[in-house]
Amino acid sequence: MIKLTVLYAQPKDAAAFERYYIDIHTPIALKVKGLRRFEISKIAATADGSPSRYYRTADLYFDDMAAMQKALGSPEGRAAAADIANFASGGATMLICESQVLSSI
Amino acid sequence: MIKLTVLYAQPKDAAAFERYYIDIHTPIALKVKGLRRFEISKIAATADGSPSRYYRTADLYFDDMAAMQKALGSPEGRAAAADIANFASGGATMLICESQVLSSI
Repeated sequence: MIKLTVLYAQPKDAAAFERYYIDIHTPIALKVKGLRRFEISKIAATADGSPSRYYRTADLYFDDMAAMQKALGSPEGRAAAADIANFASGGATMLICESQVLSSI
Repeated sequence: MIKLTVLYAQPKDAAAFERYYIDIHTPIALKVKGLRRFEISKIAATADGSPSRYYRTADLYFDDMAAMQKALGSPEGRAAAADIANFASGGATMLICESQVLSSI
C-alpha cells in the first residue's frame, strides 16, 4: 500500500487555512480517482509539549506506486496539488511512503 | 479518533534501525492495549525529490484522548516509549492528532 503523507507546516493564519482546507481543498482532493483512503488530521499537541512544526497532516492511500502516479498525474490530481499553494502559507512537505497496517481491530 | 504519529528522523545507521525496528520495537508496541490500528511506513521519496528529513513514520490510533493517555501511561505504553531511545538515533517527533477518515473504499 502506498501512502502520500502531507505535512502542513504552521500557516500564517490558522483560521484562514482551516476554512479553505475544509470547505475548498478537501472536496477538490476527494475527486482524485484511485484514492483508497483519505484521512485528515489536526495536530492537537506534541507528546513532549514542544511546539509543533506542523499544523495538519493528510494521508492519501493508493493501491500501489503506479496507481499513485496515475492519480497525481490526472487532471484531478494536478488540480489538488496546484490548490495547495492557495492555503498552505507555511509550506507543505509530501512524503511517499510504503505502508503496512500491523493491527486493526 | 486520536492518532499518535511518530516521525522518525533519518538515523545514523538505517540498516541497524530497520532491524531493531522490525524485530524488536514493533512487537513491543503491538502489546499496547487500546491500540485500534497500528500502521508503519517507510519513506520511499518526497514528492518533489528533495531529501527527506524523516526516515519512517508510524501511526497509532486510539478511540479517544483518554484511551490514548491510558495506553501511553500503562506499563506496555511506557515500555514502547522508552524503547525508542534504543534505535531512533536521529530522534523522533510525536504528534497527537485528531483524525477523520473522509473516504475509505
